[in-house]
Amino acid sequence: MSHAQSASEPHDLASPPASRRPHVVIVGAGFGGLTAAQRLAGAPVDVTVIDRRNYHLFQPLLYQVATAGLSPAQIAMPIRSVLRDAANVRVLMGRVSGVDVAGRTVHTDGHDVGYDYLILATGARHSYFGHDDWEQYAPGLKKIDDATAIRRRILTAFEAAETERDPAVRRRLLNFIIIGAGPTGVELAGAIAELARRALARDFRQIDPRAARIVLVEAGSRVLSAFPEALSERAYTSLQRLGVEVRLGVPVTAVDAEGVVVGSERIASATVIWAAGVRASSAAKWLKADADRAGRIRVQPDLSVPGHDNVFVIGDTALALDPAGNPYPGLAPVAKQQGAYVADLLRARVTGRAAVRPFVYRDWGAMATIGRNHAVAHLFSRYRFSGLFAWLLWGLVHIMFLAGFRNRLIVLMDWTWSYVTFQSGARLITGGSNSD
Amino acid sequence: MSHAQSASEPHDLASPPASRRPHVVIVGAGFGGLTAAQRLAGAPVDVTVIDRRNYHLFQPLLYQVATAGLSPAQIAMPIRSVLRDAANVRVLMGRVSGVDVAGRTVHTDGHDVGYDYLILATGARHSYFGHDDWEQYAPGLKKIDDATAIRRRILTAFEAAETERDPAVRRRLLNFIIIGAGPTGVELAGAIAELARRALARDFRQIDPRAARIVLVEAGSRVLSAFPEALSERAYTSLQRLGVEVRLGVPVTAVDAEGVVVGSERIASATVIWAAGVRASSAAKWLKADADRAGRIRVQPDLSVPGHDNVFVIGDTALALDPAGNPYPGLAPVAKQQGAYVADLLRARVTGRAAVRPFVYRDWGAMATIGRNHAVAHLFSRYRFSGLFAWLLWGLVHIMFLAGFRNRLIVLMDWTWSYVTFQSGARLITGGSNSD
Repeated sequence: MSHAQSASEPHDLASPPASRRPHVVIVGAGFGGLTAAQRLAGAPVDVTVIDRRNYHLFQPLLYQVATAGLSPAQIAMPIRSVLRDAANVRVLMGRVSGVDVAGRTVHTDGHDVGYDYLILATGARHSYFGHDDWEQYAPGLKKIDDATAIRRRILTAFEAAETERDPAVRRRLLNFIIIGAGPTGVELAGAIAELARRALARDFRQIDPRAARIVLVEAGSRVLSAFPEALSERAYTSLQRLGVEVRLGVPVTAVDAEGVVVGSERIASATVIWAAGVRASSAAKWLKADADRAGRIRVQPDLSVPGHDNVFVIGDTALALDPAGNPYPGLAPVAKQQGAYVADLLRARVTGRAAVRPFVYRDWGAMATIGRNHAVAHLFSRYRFSGLFAWLLWGLVHIMFLAGFRNRLIVLMDWTWSYVTFQSGARLITGGSNSD
Repeated sequence: MSHAQSASEPHDLASPPASRRPHVVIVGAGFGGLTAAQRLAGAPVDVTVIDRRNYHLFQPLLYQVATAGLSPAQIAMPIRSVLRDAANVRVLMGRVSGVDVAGRTVHTDGHDVGYDYLILATGARHSYFGHDDWEQYAPGLKKIDDATAIRRRILTAFEAAETERDPAVRRRLLNFIIIGAGPTGVELAGAIAELARRALARDFRQIDPRAARIVLVEAGSRVLSAFPEALSERAYTSLQRLGVEVRLGVPVTAVDAEGVVVGSERIASATVIWAAGVRASSAAKWLKADADRAGRIRVQPDLSVPGHDNVFVIGDTALALDPAGNPYPGLAPVAKQQGAYVADLLRARVTGRAAVRPFVYRDWGAMATIGRNHAVAHLFSRYRFSGLFAWLLWGLVHIMFLAGFRNRLIVLMDWTWSYVTFQSGARLITGGSNSD
């Protein structure tokens, strides 16, 4: 393959890399894309990372922003800062609109960027399973702006309830419904329950925030269905202890401005949050590649796209299969390991070393927290923990993986503070209609 | 005066105070309103604080949010939390649309609230001196949403310059113009200069952020005109040392999408910030009271409105005169002392104690910071400091006055961190057109 033209001339980006080295373009700086970029630092390639945002987001803690526990800047790092010392990596803020596989070019708003190797790490968005009109009533939680919008909804509901005379309307304002009992849904439900029962408890005069009703709705038969059954049961018990109503085995059949219909029951609510499903990014359309119903691109064992051995797909946008033929789940550790794998593969390829083995995910475990002092953890596919020890472990691991030491320290301090005082730090209603 | 009806029945708010005690309504929870509310805790009155936001904002540090040094939640505290322990004070989130002085009622969106005593502490907004069309090109800095919008503009300008081919357009993107050299303008100019020269310096590949041009424009003859001349000169020197171009004595004659016209010179710029003037809130219209050109209500020596001895105006909305007949400036300490004064006056009045003396401002001093290690301070109208000592003093005083211990500690940590690393913490581009 000739690297010369595509890496240096034909694309329309100001001052393209001047070298004749292979040009690796990474689209998306989530866990997968950022790991790949970091792993390619110092390799004999030029790397361009394209993201439509200027920061990497630590999504596992996004629910804490939505529930006023942390500030956005505490779980986000400017991509440029993370990659500052990688002299062969440059960062481009822009929105990708398509890929020309034949011409080896990525189209963004404003620029075309040529590539020799392409890594697509564009993640996933919510899926409303064909009910896209539900989104306006039940926002999902994937971005910082989602989180601040949900925070605004939750806090505004309490404010409005405080001055509301009609008991039925007040009741509706104090009903919070979370749809989907995966880790995000469980963590949100727990955090809202604690916000209502503790942080807000003494702040109001007309209402008692502790009377808020938090309902977690799940169509499946248990919460945290990716975990062993014993841990699902522990999580269920912890949620109940926090005062969360858990409805299992009932599908949501309607979502509108007044609330939701769960099975045959209508529950009035001003705050409904969607944590039920995701759909891969548009990358399959860009490549015209074979994808499953959730939009994930079927990749080869080396994570390349069939027919294009220089195009790789990783993370939530990839449908990669484990040795038993089951798809890997959409988890941060999977994306990170895939990013590292592809970086190593490219390094081997450009230096002419032996081919790399197929990608295999090494499962260190999974965790979810359910409020203060409670979490469940399933480690190395063998060990199961729940309760305080699992919770401390959860905190430790999340602090460790937060990108950037500064954030780690401040989040640790914020958590300690909240833990001791039962207060939460970021209870701002910003943006939206109250912004002027 | 009969407290009975107005305090308990005629107003249309859910569950009004059940007591027969005088009802004090405070509109606005800025420095003046919040101080009045805190000072009335435990007094034999019922207090209702109305604000359209759910938080008190520490405005003196807002420029650090605009320049990515701090997060919004670090300089804001939920009003309810601040007043949690004041059992006779309740908080209402709502937007006031008018006052019925005869009926002793405040109109808000949704509710009417009756009062026996009214304290208007509604602050000020930007004034474009008749050029309201400039606002879209040159946003001002009064609210959190202003600050995040300015942060977005500044950071987006660097991102766009990185990929821009046309040198003229790139030049325009790297020109930052601040109009008005009062404390806010000076602090903004210094902070943007440091952001460009230090925090961003190594993050880009195609541009050198240190080449950014920061221009501070002032129609008057010196910067920080409220300070003694010697301190203005020190501030001027510090700004120049930071690489800020200061243009004195030249008025801005045009602001548009391309930049500004300063005197007869056009400066192209994508980021123009307005720090030139303020105008009082609409309170004068609500009361149909006598106001000056800036909208400030002329008040009596006891801060009451002529003809209405139960209506008080404090802070930036009040035109109060010192013993020499000069208006007090729109500063946080003035507003706080006025809030405390009116609270004491009401306490004396309802308990039948002797009348309080006219309000006199006790001037402890004023300070402004100009980047790392540099500030000017004028204390007790006598002592003048500049340089490192003034800067340390500035930091100490601002930390001390930050509402809430938690914020104090975290801001102190963030500052220390930034000082040691030359980095800044909150470089997120959120909201706006990049939000989806």
